[in-house]
Amino acid sequence: MADALKIGVAGLGTVGASLVRILQQRGNALAVACGRAIEIKAVSARDRTRGRGVDVSGIEWFDDPVTLAAEADIDVFIELIGGASGPADLSVRQALSRGIHVVTANKALLARCGVELALLAEEKGVLLNYEAAVAGGIPVIKTMRESLTGNSFSRVYGIMNGTCNYILTRMEKENLTFDACLKEAQRLGYAEADPTFDIEGNDTAHKLAILTTLAFGNQISADDIYLEGISNITIEDIQAAADLGYRIKLLGVAQKTETGVEQRVHPTMVPQDSVIAQVDGVTNAVAIESDILGELLMVGPGAGGNATASAVLGDVTDIAKSRPGEQKVPAFGRPAHLLEPYRQAEIKSHEGGYFIRLTVEDRTGVFASIATKMADNRISLESIVQRPKNGGETHASQTIVLVTHATTEADVRTAVAAIQQEGYLVREPQVIRIERPKEN
Amino acid sequence: MADALKIGVAGLGTVGASLVRILQQRGNALAVACGRAIEIKAVSARDRTRGRGVDVSGIEWFDDPVTLAAEADIDVFIELIGGASGPADLSVRQALSRGIHVVTANKALLARCGVELALLAEEKGVLLNYEAAVAGGIPVIKTMRESLTGNSFSRVYGIMNGTCNYILTRMEKENLTFDACLKEAQRLGYAEADPTFDIEGNDTAHKLAILTTLAFGNQISADDIYLEGISNITIEDIQAAADLGYRIKLLGVAQKTETGVEQRVHPTMVPQDSVIAQVDGVTNAVAIESDILGELLMVGPGAGGNATASAVLGDVTDIAKSRPGEQKVPAFGRPAHLLEPYRQAEIKSHEGGYFIRLTVEDRTGVFASIATKMADNRISLESIVQRPKNGGETHASQTIVLVTHATTEADVRTAVAAIQQEGYLVREPQVIRIERPKEN
Repeated sequence: MADALKIGVAGLGTVGASLVRILQQRGNALAVACGRAIEIKAVSARDRTRGRGVDVSGIEWFDDPVTLAAEADIDVFIELIGGASGPADLSVRQALSRGIHVVTANKALLARCGVELALLAEEKGVLLNYEAAVAGGIPVIKTMRESLTGNSFSRVYGIMNGTCNYILTRMEKENLTFDACLKEAQRLGYAEADPTFDIEGNDTAHKLAILTTLAFGNQISADDIYLEGISNITIEDIQAAADLGYRIKLLGVAQKTETGVEQRVHPTMVPQDSVIAQVDGVTNAVAIESDILGELLMVGPGAGGNATASAVLGDVTDIAKSRPGEQKVPAFGRPAHLLEPYRQAEIKSHEGGYFIRLTVEDRTGVFASIATKMADNRISLESIVQRPKNGGETHASQTIVLVTHATTEADVRTAVAAIQQEGYLVREPQVIRIERPKEN
Repeated sequence: MADALKIGVAGLGTVGASLVRILQQRGNALAVACGRAIEIKAVSARDRTRGRGVDVSGIEWFDDPVTLAAEADIDVFIELIGGASGPADLSVRQALSRGIHVVTANKALLARCGVELALLAEEKGVLLNYEAAVAGGIPVIKTMRESLTGNSFSRVYGIMNGTCNYILTRMEKENLTFDACLKEAQRLGYAEADPTFDIEGNDTAHKLAILTTLAFGNQISADDIYLEGISNITIEDIQAAADLGYRIKLLGVAQKTETGVEQRVHPTMVPQDSVIAQVDGVTNAVAIESDILGELLMVGPGAGGNATASAVLGDVTDIAKSRPGEQKVPAFGRPAHLLEPYRQAEIKSHEGGYFIRLTVEDRTGVFASIATKMADNRISLESIVQRPKNGGETHASQTIVLVTHATTEADVRTAVAAIQQEGYLVREPQVIRIERPKEN
């Protein structure tokens, strides 16, 4: 049997502790599968005295992950610290510069400087693996960069934030408000005390930026993502969606268009009978659409110590099975210096169906006016529903829900602005994009 | 750039022709992704003159794949001939013996002698890759043997035959008989002229046998699979399933139990609100249940020239990216000589819920008798439905549908046999097992 693969683990939070526990408990099975043992040579965390449910007493301890990356006798540096800068960034650069493979779960770091890190890894001939950074335990990175090599991608989209999907699922199943479901998610540990990063779509955007680069070969461009969160989704929207045969999910979507690549994160209507519509609770799902294969959908746990550790372990065992020396799997599917500048498609050019909910004064001519504004902007309608009154409306108002055939974002915005000008809207209009899976 | 990877393609049917076309059209992109070109050095098929829509004129031609495997100047032998024995078998053995990597889409061959071939590959230090053999374009093999290394598997199950899933979907959506849907499938090319192999579950069994070995580390044992096809599923069953919140799918299931590993292929009731229940038409789906990750479900095209070629291409590019020399990814996740004998769990020990449909004489005491026989065999019932009469019944008969809580196959069989003894059944009883996804 070959020499053991020596690893250093920086960060002993939930994921780090799970990883150490699994490596300690499954040592023999892993050695058989990899043809060599995996040995934890060094660990690092902020507080040495904190109880973590794992025994790290025989392992060299570093208070500073950068020192670990610089000095420990390791083949692989595993970064589970988190954060787009600071110790995570510094220690990963340190490890790569030393010619040590890096495995990371850090989406924020990759979204900020993934290409730079990939260049450094390639220069040093080592691997930069990051399966855990997107959709937790779902092996979407490996699938895109290894299994689908040769495919040309047209769209990648998915449910990549468990907090949002939990909230939307609860709202629908229990008929509860957004605020009530957010509180429940916080109580269960599915949402942070400050949930902004999750519910406004930033977390999804980091993951999407990475998938976009894998799919379309552009430099990572997380700042150019169109963002809409779920905080203004109401039960009324969810019910109207259900009546029309849709469910609402927060999707991240990267799509190739004639004018560039769209990157957008927003609440989305998906057909109720599609597979992704059934993905409930904290579960994640990623759909990969490519020309040779068609559509592949992967569904699984997107977070949690064990699920994330499983992805990290896959990355580590890949390195254990490979021969030392030349790095052969480019981090983003092609050599980093060949990644092209990101060519952004404007959200206004987006083409697709739209759900539009309008709460209007209950008077003659309003319906005709709405229909005219739509027609003026070349928007044809798939369905128009006048929703029955409920508690949220006055006697003098009613709700009209429109679902459009494929049109453009620009036309929808113009039409809705024109309707707003008419003065009969009694609430802000709601506009939700529709996304349809490809038929295989 | 490194030397080109030289491949030989044996078999130029739909998959082979797709593969050759893609390699010719995507040469540059593949070379960038792999760090080296992929060059088709040799091809083989039965009839050189047949039109295939691809130009193989500049490629060395072999009438005999065994000669190609023995003599061509290649690094990888790609077997797309099919069949459990004969030229496929002989040429694969020839290539491996020569120390040449093998990529195959041949489930029948692997189900029969996969372990033997893996031993030979390991002895020669070459790779045996077979992503396309199970569930077409879905990368389930790579996921199980690479991404989930370190996980301990508890169950693997899926929809792995497009013909059956197409027929069951059509029956449900269009309210058509099995025979009508089979004819439709044949007309569309989704079913063979002799459909036995698909509809009786043998095709699913071959794929399942391979997944069982990957999951549980036993020798392949395709002959020990419990088989039930879909030809006796009626519209009545599908409707009764829907009323009770289930859909019927042909599943292959491999499951670890206390007495061994169950391998079974049969029509199965899955909860209507589960993700796998939404997988319609010819699409395939595989669920992988493991202790660290939880449940991962992959959904995608399970057949077709391009989807299958995509999987073959993933296998080939993996080899192109690896360094020549020592083979490091064992074909079945661990070295073949460490695979253990298959320990079969008897179908009679299977535990789970059951759907039982009984068509009985419409007379006093029958209901009580059925309930008593169930209770006598410790079977508790989740629901009992007396279905309204329809065309298939006489005035003097009625249909009773039972759904049981978890029980054993042995108890169900004893109870049903006891009911049959009573003489009030007017048709053969229908018994369908229920399978539930794991909650993540």
